Amino acid sequence: MEQRVSLITLGVADVRRARAFYERLGWRGHEVQETVFFQAGRLVLVLWGRDKLALDCGLTDDRAPSFDGIALAHNVRSDADVDAVMAAAERAGATVTKAPAKTFYGGYAGVFTDPDGHAWEIAHNPGFPIEEDGSVTVPDFSAP
Amino acid sequence: MEQRVSLITLGVADVRRARAFYERLGWRGHEVQETVFFQAGRLVLVLWGRDKLALDCGLTDDRAPSFDGIALAHNVRSDADVDAVMAAAERAGATVTKAPAKTFYGGYAGVFTDPDGHAWEIAHNPGFPIEEDGSVTVPDFSAP
Repeated sequence: MEQRVSLITLGVADVRRARAFYERLGWRGHEVQETVFFQAGRLVLVLWGRDKLALDCGLTDDRAPSFDGIALAHNVRSDADVDAVMAAAERAGATVTKAPAKTFYGGYAGVFTDPDGHAWEIAHNPGFPIEEDGSVTVPDFSAP
Repeated sequence: MEQRVSLITLGVADVRRARAFYERLGWRGHEVQETVFFQAGRLVLVLWGRDKLALDCGLTDDRAPSFDGIALAHNVRSDADVDAVMAAAERAGATVTKAPAKTFYGGYAGVFTDPDGHAWEIAHNPGFPIEEDGSVTVPDFSAP
């Protein structure tokens, strides 16, 4: 697993309210399906409904009362890389909360938690190309 | 406030256990005073005692039962920039949980939470130089 973070997703109660707050701070993002993407340096900061995030991570409140409300994502370049990192994490002592599977956005991802319950999504997302140096760029959602 | 994240600090119950987990994943970091710093692409991932992190953020459990266990940091280039970003955040609706003050590491920092309680430390840390592009590099702690 390379030492890099691709996305930070903040689970929020109200996407519109959260987006308005970050916009008042001067941030500018792109919203797609009630999900807001901010280019934050070389990574992407995402605002997404907290319940959707928990469900997507396999961390519904009854299963994980200590869900951070934040998920880190580590994007890789192929489905096989997802499987490899998830297997390595499990060997390292992680708890797999979502086994790798196709995602609604056309990618492939799994989720594990570290020994303190912090969630990492390992994802292959063809819509978010990874640069040579590992950085991730918000795509042009307005492109046809 | 520029759109970038300088550090992600994961609050952990046991720094040694957490570090060992990330090392089994192949990560390599530097430990200083029970704090582990991993260069993660252009930002720094930190492991620190959860209680210390909560206290440092002004988010002790009784004041903030929903503390994420994670803090994001946005480093700036001067003490005056810390004051300016903290004031802008407060005007934008943030809750200031720690007013800007000198830090134990010789810097100057304040902490706010966004409308969902996610913590942001705004810090001027002369020990962690900021590159032109906003990226942050773990310093050489072994240097004299």
